[in-house]
Amino acid sequence: MTMTTDFNAAKINNGVNVDALLGAREAFEQTPEAAQFKWRASCEWVTGTHSRSTIKNFFGLGTEQSRDKHFCVEADHPKVFAAEDNAPTPVEIVLAGLASCLTAGVAAVAQRRGIQLHSVKATLEGDMDIQGILGMDDDIRNGFGGIRVHFDIRADASQDDIKSLVAQSQKRSAVFDIITNPTNVFVTVN
Amino acid sequence: MTMTTDFNAAKINNGVNVDALLGAREAFEQTPEAAQFKWRASCEWVTGTHSRSTIKNFFGLGTEQSRDKHFCVEADHPKVFAAEDNAPTPVEIVLAGLASCLTAGVAAVAQRRGIQLHSVKATLEGDMDIQGILGMDDDIRNGFGGIRVHFDIRADASQDDIKSLVAQSQKRSAVFDIITNPTNVFVTVN
Repeated sequence: MTMTTDFNAAKINNGVNVDALLGAREAFEQTPEAAQFKWRASCEWVTGTHSRSTIKNFFGLGTEQSRDKHFCVEADHPKVFAAEDNAPTPVEIVLAGLASCLTAGVAAVAQRRGIQLHSVKATLEGDMDIQGILGMDDDIRNGFGGIRVHFDIRADASQDDIKSLVAQSQKRSAVFDIITNPTNVFVTVN
Repeated sequence: MTMTTDFNAAKINNGVNVDALLGAREAFEQTPEAAQFKWRASCEWVTGTHSRSTIKNFFGLGTEQSRDKHFCVEADHPKVFAAEDNAPTPVEIVLAGLASCLTAGVAAVAQRRGIQLHSVKATLEGDMDIQGILGMDDDIRNGFGGIRVHFDIRADASQDDIKSLVAQSQKRSAVFDIITNPTNVFVTVN
């Protein structure tokens, strides 16, 4: 029975190295200071509402981690805001961050549970009353009034097991936590 | 005096159409339902922790708004998480969203106040204890313990006026609000 399970689990490949993640857990139990990460981005104003953020290095496992490349994320406002629409809006970028965090989590949990995924698609929508950012009414918040995420997943698993994958991903998602709970942001100038 | 002020204001160009934004404010006072926006993203799993989010349409001004193009935001995990590092992590993407939202705000407020910007650079760092997302300790959150944002701004303005630009941007930033305050996220499956 155990052999059959192991045999099936070995065939499951969602592209996630679960053994390495479980190994990291054990290592962090010995040296919890290695689990303290610092993630970074820097952003340069281009013109108007157009900007370009660069992502390269971070700190983790007790040392600076330097990627051999950098990533860019551009942002802008759309034409209905009298802007150039060169890139997605900052709030759409946050939705992409949430979507990708939950999706990566689904893949990792599926791998851990021996469930072969075939496809995962997340569709997100966030409500925003623009009167908030325009400063028209202090009772209207600047951010999203609420966000809906819908997952469409094809996998070798029952509907209940698929729902459970998403629930576990949500429970351990960094961006889900960032959006649903408050985080202190300290801003300094020059 | 007024003419001099107008003359100076006319020469200020940060690439933001403040008149259009003020016009939008007036329009929304008449028809607040036009200010109800829905921002969207959809995300497809590639493999492992790699995903690709697509951003195209949104709802606003009482109707569907269709861009004539779409934007992609890819995400992945880094090699120290035994992943492929094809793209930034979801949490770095959220930092880029915050950076770009505050930076666009600085440009808009500067335009409104008649301050010529020369350069704006934001540097962000978020602390994360990875024991949270690994589920090692329920007292450790999944998201950032805190975020620091530092602005380096060159502009034709006093240091106090530059600080005030950033404070006003922060006050009206959608993403700053999303990160510092809780937002409900509703997740459904299939």
